[in-house]
Formats: sequence, C-alpha cells, structure tokens
Amino acid sequence: MELSNSQLLQEIIRIQGVASDESRIKSFIKDYVLKHQGYWKSKPHIIDGTGFQDALILVFGNPRTAVYAHMDTIGYSVGYENELIRVGGPKNIDGTILVGNDSHGVVEGELMIFENEYNQQRLQLSCERAVDRGTLLSFKPHFKETKEYVQSPYLDNRLGVYVALQLAETMENGAIVFSTYEEHGGNSVGACAKYLMNNYEVFQALICDITWVTSGVVHKGGVAISMRDSMLPRRKYLNKILKIANDSGIKFQLEVESAGGSDGSVLQKSDLPIDWCFIGAPEDNVHTPAEKVYKKDIESMIELYRVLMDQL
Amino acid sequence: MELSNSQLLQEIIRIQGVASDESRIKSFIKDYVLKHQGYWKSKPHIIDGTGFQDALILVFGNPRTAVYAHMDTIGYSVGYENELIRVGGPKNIDGTILVGNDSHGVVEGELMIFENEYNQQRLQLSCERAVDRGTLLSFKPHFKETKEYVQSPYLDNRLGVYVALQLAETMENGAIVFSTYEEHGGNSVGACAKYLMNNYEVFQALICDITWVTSGVVHKGGVAISMRDSMLPRRKYLNKILKIANDSGIKFQLEVESAGGSDGSVLQKSDLPIDWCFIGAPEDNVHTPAEKVYKKDIESMIELYRVLMDQL
Amino acid sequence: MELSNSQLLQEIIRIQGVASDESRIKSFIKDYVLKHQGYWKSKPHIIDGTGFQDALILVFGNPRTAVYAHMDTIGYSVGYENELIRVGGPKNIDGTILVGNDSHGVVEGELMIFENEYNQQRLQLSCERAVDRGTLLSFKPHFKETKEYVQSPYLDNRLGVYVALQLAETMENGAIVFSTYEEHGGNSVGACAKYLMNNYEVFQALICDITWVTSGVVHKGGVAISMRDSMLPRRKYLNKILKIANDSGIKFQLEVESAGGSDGSVLQKSDLPIDWCFIGAPEDNVHTPAEKVYKKDIESMIELYRVLMDQL
Repeated sequence: MELSNSQLLQEIIRIQGVASDESRIKSFIKDYVLKHQGYWKSKPHIIDGTGFQDALILVFGNPRTAVYAHMDTIGYSVGYENELIRVGGPKNIDGTILVGNDSHGVVEGELMIFENEYNQQRLQLSCERAVDRGTLLSFKPHFKETKEYVQSPYLDNRLGVYVALQLAETMENGAIVFSTYEEHGGNSVGACAKYLMNNYEVFQALICDITWVTSGVVHKGGVAISMRDSMLPRRKYLNKILKIANDSGIKFQLEVESAGGSDGSVLQKSDLPIDWCFIGAPEDNVHTPAEKVYKKDIESMIELYRVLMDQL
Repeated sequence: MELSNSQLLQEIIRIQGVASDESRIKSFIKDYVLKHQGYWKSKPHIIDGTGFQDALILVFGNPRTAVYAHMDTIGYSVGYENELIRVGGPKNIDGTILVGNDSHGVVEGELMIFENEYNQQRLQLSCERAVDRGTLLSFKPHFKETKEYVQSPYLDNRLGVYVALQLAETMENGAIVFSTYEEHGGNSVGACAKYLMNNYEVFQALICDITWVTSGVVHKGGVAISMRDSMLPRRKYLNKILKIANDSGIKFQLEVESAGGSDGSVLQKSDLPIDWCFIGAPEDNVHTPAEKVYKKDIESMIELYRVLMDQL
Repeated sequence: MELSNSQLLQEIIRIQGVASDESRIKSFIKDYVLKHQGYWKSKPHIIDGTGFQDALILVFGNPRTAVYAHMDTIGYSVGYENELIRVGGPKNIDGTILVGNDSHGVVEGELMIFENEYNQQRLQLSCERAVDRGTLLSFKPHFKETKEYVQSPYLDNRLGVYVALQLAETMENGAIVFSTYEEHGGNSVGACAKYLMNNYEVFQALICDITWVTSGVVHKGGVAISMRDSMLPRRKYLNKILKIANDSGIKFQLEVESAGGSDGSVLQKSDLPIDWCFIGAPEDNVHTPAEKVYKKDIESMIELYRVLMDQL
C-alpha cells in the first residue's frame, strides 16, 4: 500500500516547530491551504493572526465538530554551556543527532548523557562550538517508508497534521484547528475552542493525534479510539462516537490507559463546555527519532474521521 | 436523631455516576426538582443542556452566592483483560465489590490487588467473564444508618447533593450548581460559574462537599469551614463567612489542611474572579465503601448554609 | 549608587500580604497612586473592585503591553496546635522569626523543624501562646542596604511592585497589573488579562518579577530576560523583545532554566492568547528572609522596562 501524498508528510516533518516556535510550520500549512483549497470540495474560512498566536483555524460550511491537530513537536532548549533542557518529553538517547539554528548559523550535534553518583542525569550537546542560549533543537529528520510502515521523528504529530489536511479536501461542514504548545504547557487550544464556540456554536472536538502501542493497542488493529488516558472524555459523547464507529465497519481498536494527555486534556481543564475524544493511529518508539506507524492504521484513521465529521 | 428525608439520600447513592458519566444522576436530580419545586418557597430557573454538559444549575430569585455540589463519584475503569484503572482517588482495598454495566449486562466482581517484586500494584477485577473495555465500575451500594451516624459509599458527595436539595426547599435568593468531574480532571464548574457571573453577577461560591476527619477536624465538632486545603480561599471572603458563622451560634469547626482540593480549586485556577470557600461535614473512611458521617454534623451543615445564603 | 526612593521599597516590604491576603498591600498601592499620580507624566485609569478581587490595574493612554507585578508573598498558615503549613515555597530555616496577627493581637514566634524517624519534617511555631487556626504568618521585615546590594525578605516581589511604580511615573501608553496569588495557586492574572484584552486589545505581557541567581544568571550581569523556566514564552514574541533589548544598549543577561514559574505560567495555561515574557533582576537566597539583589541590576531592570513599554 502506498501512503497517498507521502511527499507532503515528508515536507512537514522537515519543518522545525519545537513547542513555542510554531510560526514556520504554521506558515507552511497556511500557504499549502491557499495553494490547494481551489481543488477542495469546499473552500474554508482561514482564521489566524492577532488573538490566535501561531495557531490556525479552517472553518468549512456550518461546523458542529472541530478537529484538533497540534503542529508543535518535542525537542530541547540549549541552556548554559551547551547543556540541554527538554521541551516536552523526548526520550533521551545517547548519540541522538539534534539540529537547529542560532545567530552563527546551522547547529548540528549529538546528545550526550552524563550521570552523576546520585544517578541524576545531565544532558549535554556535543558540538564543536558554543550554541546561543535558548536555541531550540529537534531530532534530525530521517524519513523511512516500507511496504507496511512509515518511520520518522515527529510522526507525533506531523501525521495528525497530514491527516487533517487530507480531511480538508472533502470536508463540507467542520473546523480544523492547527494548535500549538501541545507538547509543553498547552495553549492556543482554549482560545481557538472559545472562538469556535462563540462564533459557530461548536461544542464537539476530536483530537487528531498519534497514540502509543501498548499491551492493548497494537499495530494493525486499526485507528484507536481512546476511552481514557489520564483524563476521561464525557461518556455520553464517547458513546455517540462508538455508535458511529461500530456502524461504519471501519477497523478500530479501543484504548483504555491510565496515563498520557493531549489537547483534549487542555479542553477538559478549561472552563469551556466542549466535549472531546482522542482518535488516532498508534505508534511505536514514542518520542524518539524512530516513531513508527502502520500505514493501514493511518488509512482507517482518515476514514473514521471522514465518517465522524459527517455524522457526529 | 432522624436524618430527615434519609430515603432521598439512599436513592441518590444508588444511582451510578462515576466522573465523566453523570448523565443518570443529573436526570434524577432534574426530575426530582421538577416534581418537588411546587412545594418549595421559591421556584427556580432550571439551566442545563447545550453548553453545560451534564451539569445542572438552579437559580432562585436574585442570587449573590452559588452553592456547588458535585454529582460525580470516584470509581474504576476496566482496562485490558479486566485490569482496573482508578477514576479519581478510590482507596484500593482487596475484596471490595464493584458493580457496573456493559454490553453483556450487569457486572459485579471483586477488586484484587497484585504486587510485583518492585512493590508496584496492579489492580484486577475478579469476575467470571471479560468485561468490556472502558466500563466504569463503582462501589456496590451499602447504606447503614445508626442512631448517630450514616455510613455508605459515596457520602462524598451524595451527601452534598442531598444537602443542596434540602437547601432548595427554602432558598429565596441563590444558585445551586450540580457539577461534574470533581473527582477527576475538573470541569463544568468553570462554565457554570462563568454563566452565573455573566448573567446574574454571582461572584461568591460555597463548596458544598464532604471533608476528612483529621487530627483537627472531628466527628461531633459541627460542620467544618475550611480555611485552606492545598488552595487558600481569599482571606477577605473567608473573614466575612467566619463573622456570619460566629454570630449564628451554629456549631462549626475550623479546618486548616495542607492537602486536598475541591471544586474550589477549579475556580481558584480559572481566570474567573470568583470567591470560594469549602464548607462541609467531616467523614471518616474517606474514599472507601464505608464513608461515615455524624448526623448532627450534617444538620449543622444545612443550618449554616441556610444562614450564609441569607446573609452573605 | 543610591536606590532612588528606597523609602518606598521599605514601606511596601513592611506591609504583610501573604498569598490570599493581599487586601492591605493593594490598599497601600492604590493610596500611593492616588497621592502621586498628579506628578506623573500621564494619569492612569484605576480599575479594581468587583470582578478583580484584590488585584489592581492601572491603564495609561492606549496600552499595547501590560506589566504584571505580583503583590503577594510566601509565608505560613498556622494549623492545629501551632503547626505551620507553607503558603507558596518558603525555604524552611530553623529559627526564622515569623510575624502576624490573630484575634488576640500580635503574633511573633520562631519556626522550628522537627524530623521524625522517616526523615519527614514537621514545622512548628515556637510561641508562648496558641495562635488562632488559619493565621497567616510571614518573615519579620529586616531591610538592609549596602553600597552595592539591597537585602530583605520579600524582594520577591516587593521589588517588582516597586519597579512597576517607578515605571508609572513616566508611562504614557501601557498597563500595570498588581496581581495576587502568584506564590500559591495563581489567580486574578487571568481575569485582569481578559479585561485588558477585551477592553483595550492588550495581547502582550511582561512579567515584572525577581528571578534566581544560578550558574548562568549572576549578580552584576544586568536584568535577566528569561528565555524559559518550566514554561516557554512564544519564540516570535521573545525575538521581538531580544531585538529591542539588544538595540537599547542596556545591560542584560539571558536566562534558560528548566524549573520555576510565574504569572507568565498562569497566562500560558489559560485560554487567553496573550504573549508573555519574564524580565527581572536576579536574587540570591531565594525565598528566605535574606533575599539579596544587586542595585545596578534593578536600575537596568527599570531602564529596560521603560524602553520595552515604549517600543514593544
């Protein structure tokens, strides 16, 4: 099976967008929308700028449900003397190659882990020069596609962005929010949700993101509908989704985990009465440079979103 | 002493409402209000539906203060292969009987605790069949009333709901919010508080919930006014409450704890300028199936709320 | 070098304002503004009262940016039998003198630390009498000014308040928010930010607070611009600030830390699309009665804020 438009996925993986620094990936997506919307079933309103920071909203027709796909990634900040401080929760692996830019140009170096006698870790960038304080680094892009799988850094959540852009092609009624800061601190989701609630009476959210392969959620099991992670979606809303999913015949699996969070958690903890549910393909090697997703699980993810945006 | 309307308390304890799944207890309360409001001193506006999820608001006259009673309870989610994941913070006790419903009908089983060599606990439902993923379970109802005490699962916070419904009978100016998700994640409180602030200029909240017996808060000490838990109410508001309580002659005790939270914490962390204070009877055996409250402490709770809703 | 208006700094340090109890320091600031605004370049609108709890906002001209200076301090609550419970994160030092007031008058006592066999600490107030439950205590004022340094409890954040009041003298377009609860729980910031956003279209915030001397941020290095603490400001906004700071010629240093938070974190976690950046002089002996700041770093803090309020 070929991943349709695999080129697009590779392109958006190459654009750096560590949490707090999403302006470039946002510009890319906006340009892409402007260039392609003429070929889409319905042309969206594009909402961004003042009051939305680096987030971007597309509104198609009369939306009832918004899809949230976060644009930011995990990574590292350069601290004092090339020390590394995590942005979000990257898995620290000795020798990982990190890239970025500072006032002296391109930065490329290796992550090194030092452990002291108390088993405390210090992370250091091995690099031939001192890097500017505060420089943001991310995993070096390295995309692989086999017959069955895609593997790359940042499938979480470039794949969610990619899925959202596939949905855009045929969406008639609905909204897509490309959100920021999901991996660190959470933000922009609340502002966007409030805007959609106040202006379009959108009270339903679907979190278009990548989840984890666990003992209960596996490759080749279809897209995962999450019944809970650290947070619980409202049961009444969840039941509505499960009914539609069951009736659709699309392959899916049910996730029930005790940990983890998403843009849904931000909605849950806000004072917005927005229902949310996380729906996404599972990946292995989470938060490493080798995140891996089964291609047919991506396909079922796109299919299920299409049905839900239509029927929910 | 007889608890007036003990029947109502038993009824609402029997209705399952694990956090995220409050639709049934909400329906029960709404039906109860519709059936009984004709006998009340003042007939409330009932606010619910879109924009309020499973929460319910009653507005009497010109409210200055809102009483918050959460409808949800702690419990467990069924994970993969009958593993149990906590909803909120139930005390895990081997042999506890849990009940619920899934697609195959009634579920009843026993909580079992397994410990591995690293002292990590795994919780398992002992049950003759596999239960659907994501099924919500709660403690099996078991109500006991003695001369002095009531004992039951979920006095936290069915007792708060019960108290709020007693208050409703004579309330002339005030609001009651039956809130959701207090035990896990927090939500609906913010949306309800914002609604009451924007539409009725309500800036004062009282958190009608059950607290813990500790070294400083005891059975038979009267209702507890909490001067702090993990959060601190605004001192100016607290002082106003203490003045009214002192002048009232009603028996109360002062709580000063370092931990714990409530719907008040949700208000505190929101961007709503709402004052809040937790006021409730203390219970023993917190978050177990045998929560126990001294009946006269419930009586003083109702009395103090009556005075506060009148004078605050 | 003389700290201009050192008298004012000493006065505001003497006024107790433990988080949740900011009404007195707020009244002092309001009185100060009313008394001095006639001599200022521009007379502010004063916004406070219902809907703002104990916070206070000054609006000058057409604001684009708001300065946030929190008025509250760390301290202790008196629990049962003179036990002490922390408000915020004071460093517990045996023998620290704490002061406050209860229904019997002035309270003064010594902090004592008891450790049990499990290395758990219990904090106790050594005092000749039982102190009322819930009484708030703070470090006894003890101000020292040398040729180069000021040293006192609560430079964090009385110094931020002092800086904000210096800025007020010449501010033409901008807002100043004197916020509450920064040290414990966070609040009022969101309500004030929302007010300024809705009424004045203010989307930019500067957090006027005191930071920590660390391996990368030192005394005599100038004011610190924080590129991150536990949270990350939006990069686009940060870059704008760094450009102005670089062009100004004012002495500053760049902070990149993994921990800590501020009123900026509250904005970050809210659903308000407000950009924020922490800018403040560094102090040694953080959260002790002997917080110490280099005087010229305060000067560069005032200077940088003047330039930023003008150019941002």
